[in-house]
Amino acid sequence: MGTGPDPHGVRSVTLTPIGFVERDGDVEGWSIEALRSQPVRIRLDPALVDGLLGVEPGSDILVLFYCHLSSGYTLQLHPRGDLSRPLQGVFATRSQYRPNPIGVTVARVLRVDGSVLQVVGLDALDGSPVLDLKKSTSTFDVPGAE
Amino acid sequence: MGTGPDPHGVRSVTLTPIGFVERDGDVEGWSIEALRSQPVRIRLDPALVDGLLGVEPGSDILVLFYCHLSSGYTLQLHPRGDLSRPLQGVFATRSQYRPNPIGVTVARVLRVDGSVLQVVGLDALDGSPVLDLKKSTSTFDVPGAE
Repeated sequence: MGTGPDPHGVRSVTLTPIGFVERDGDVEGWSIEALRSQPVRIRLDPALVDGLLGVEPGSDILVLFYCHLSSGYTLQLHPRGDLSRPLQGVFATRSQYRPNPIGVTVARVLRVDGSVLQVVGLDALDGSPVLDLKKSTSTFDVPGAE
Repeated sequence: MGTGPDPHGVRSVTLTPIGFVERDGDVEGWSIEALRSQPVRIRLDPALVDGLLGVEPGSDILVLFYCHLSSGYTLQLHPRGDLSRPLQGVFATRSQYRPNPIGVTVARVLRVDGSVLQVVGLDALDGSPVLDLKKSTSTFDVPGAE
């Protein structure tokens, strides 16, 4: 936190992945849209399986994952590297190259087999640590919704 | 990750807060709705101020924060402690008591003064470490949107 004193005392946050993404095949060079169209598996820590009660096929979940292959960032960028788009601050984008490279994406649950979920809509890569799964709800995720 | 071998090698993820939430007054016992109705400040690390280009008053941002006062969790719960609501797995809820207590909430930007944002809609508490700010976009946040 910069050079000033930290009034809050929390200098770092350490998280343990709750699972990992498994994606088949070589997706090098794939667009985000292509990545999202391919179903992937989320292999949850089996000790957490009871936490999936209510996560059903057809439901949508918010997936928080760590972009483990992202390294470094710039504070300003042209979104998706498209120079025709205006320069933006990283916090006004969804770039994976950010101070804390956490991805947040809504995905649709296709299947639940014990502690393994099959989902579609996720842009995470093979091996991405999954940090959290949450109910997708307009209350928290959509501007101005109640 | 349970007791089995971890094929991916990422056993923990350590993040550095990009800033902190500042909330005025005593909010003990406040509902989530009350918390969200009170404007709060996000005091960003001044070194990251250039990352705010494009974060304007009136725009909506997704705020990822660490629920620093959350301790412990159960894998199944009645949402908001309401016994009339069916038992749910923690991953089918937005409970702050979860394996990795990260909150994700969309907030509206009211003002930007250098590296300090005033926002409304955030349910984080005073002192909550902020992990990320992201553009709020239906592409990633709303089920089935393109």
